[in-house]
Amino acid sequence: MENQIARIESALNRFVPETNELYKTVTDAMRYSLLNGGKRVRAVLTLEFCKLCGGTEEMAMPFACAVEMIHAYSLIHDDLPCMDNDDMRRGKPSNHKVFGENYALLAGDGLLTKAFETALSAEAFRVAGVERAAKAASVLAACAGEFGMVGGQCIDLETENQAVSLDVLYAKDTGKTANLIMAACMMGCIAAGAEDKLVEAARNYALHIGLAFQIRDDILDVTGTAEELGKNIGIDAQNNRCTYVSLLGIEKAQQMVDTYTNTALEALAVFSGDTVFLRDFALQLANRTK
Amino acid sequence: MENQIARIESALNRFVPETNELYKTVTDAMRYSLLNGGKRVRAVLTLEFCKLCGGTEEMAMPFACAVEMIHAYSLIHDDLPCMDNDDMRRGKPSNHKVFGENYALLAGDGLLTKAFETALSAEAFRVAGVERAAKAASVLAACAGEFGMVGGQCIDLETENQAVSLDVLYAKDTGKTANLIMAACMMGCIAAGAEDKLVEAARNYALHIGLAFQIRDDILDVTGTAEELGKNIGIDAQNNRCTYVSLLGIEKAQQMVDTYTNTALEALAVFSGDTVFLRDFALQLANRTK
Repeated sequence: MENQIARIESALNRFVPETNELYKTVTDAMRYSLLNGGKRVRAVLTLEFCKLCGGTEEMAMPFACAVEMIHAYSLIHDDLPCMDNDDMRRGKPSNHKVFGENYALLAGDGLLTKAFETALSAEAFRVAGVERAAKAASVLAACAGEFGMVGGQCIDLETENQAVSLDVLYAKDTGKTANLIMAACMMGCIAAGAEDKLVEAARNYALHIGLAFQIRDDILDVTGTAEELGKNIGIDAQNNRCTYVSLLGIEKAQQMVDTYTNTALEALAVFSGDTVFLRDFALQLANRTK
Repeated sequence: MENQIARIESALNRFVPETNELYKTVTDAMRYSLLNGGKRVRAVLTLEFCKLCGGTEEMAMPFACAVEMIHAYSLIHDDLPCMDNDDMRRGKPSNHKVFGENYALLAGDGLLTKAFETALSAEAFRVAGVERAAKAASVLAACAGEFGMVGGQCIDLETENQAVSLDVLYAKDTGKTANLIMAACMMGCIAAGAEDKLVEAARNYALHIGLAFQIRDDILDVTGTAEELGKNIGIDAQNNRCTYVSLLGIEKAQQMVDTYTNTALEALAVFSGDTVFLRDFALQLANRTK
């Protein structure tokens, strides 16, 4: 897996190379957040699902990179003063602290656009075919958009400082977190030319590990340390944000993590290939401490 | 042309409909800027080039709408306090003045994403085919990204308060303004399945009317009135922005508008269809007063 992550980093570096004077600041700002050593959870899932559906890593790489670009943009815009106003990210100053708000805004816009440029690049057309690339990019757009990730952010703002129902929390976490993981997993299957039934199963796995991931994140915001997580903690409480933890307490929230993880594992039954990695991955996310 | 604009408005309205509580604010904010009665210059060009290459309006409509979505997002993010800090747009309060900075940011992100969702929608796949949709969306991404429109914004920031060369000004205006018009014209041809030579001619026409459009815009920022233009004037001077007007004066700047317009007209020679509309359009842009 270390080798796989190195290959993802190398591809990201290739899709967003350093540039000269005129464009230097915006590409530097894009690269600062994109190449900042994330866990590459989403990219790894794209590659794994492609492999599981009989495809190659090469076929899935542009889509794996595209989903990481969407993730990176969302973190940059999230951290801006008008949103979470967070000045730390992965143990380093957040994008706007280094490049200023204006370049951070543009770097986010640039990465969001680059995601589609990458998923619809000559390379993507060559390795996966134009039709699969179009379908993968279409799924990415739907999952990232106003009824996907952007919608989740909107629900987050709408319900700030409010106690909300579990239903609304579910919609928020699905939007903010699960949707992009869904895009990652589905695009892997699509890149391999998998039938709809498998794409749907990947979606189902992703939805549930996504929800589990977000709830685990909420738990770590209470129980974790800034050093270990590489970001400020206690942000949810500070922003009076209603989470599964604030609604149910830590213990019941962890029970939900485990329930969702089990549902995700069940979704893998339909695949005939080796799902050990994806099973372990789900279990690891459910119990991660950073 | 009035009917055509009405059909564009109707399609935009269909692609970004009103929604219920959870997503209401973000879709309202997206619709506020998207349906705010722009001149639809870009969408009209997409439809016209598609027609000129033997396609139908229906074939080009998703791409016409996509380019308007990119344009609308760029205006929202441009107006934000960390960018131009402009509180008027088309005679109405700018997006963040109505919805707040956070929703304006998300509405911009939502529209940028929606552009690709629309260009890669089931409707786009049906009317133009998956392959043409993929190629059109790929062009849109390249023209909107960090070496296109976002890049132009970056050059703008880099060179703020600086006297720059005509070359840099050319790169900035190409990025900020011409690129999206290029995407509009090229996507129209691609939707119709035109050969590369025609797509390239459309690109050339677009580049030069784009440059002419931007220089005319700079002239109007000095000579126009806020009432007529529906936005604040004198912004360039206020921001010490170097433009063709500040470098060459109004008269020579208008000469460049006319030169670029002629180059654009020459690019149309390769089309066998009726180019009267596109010729008039270019001439009208070159002499517009609002």
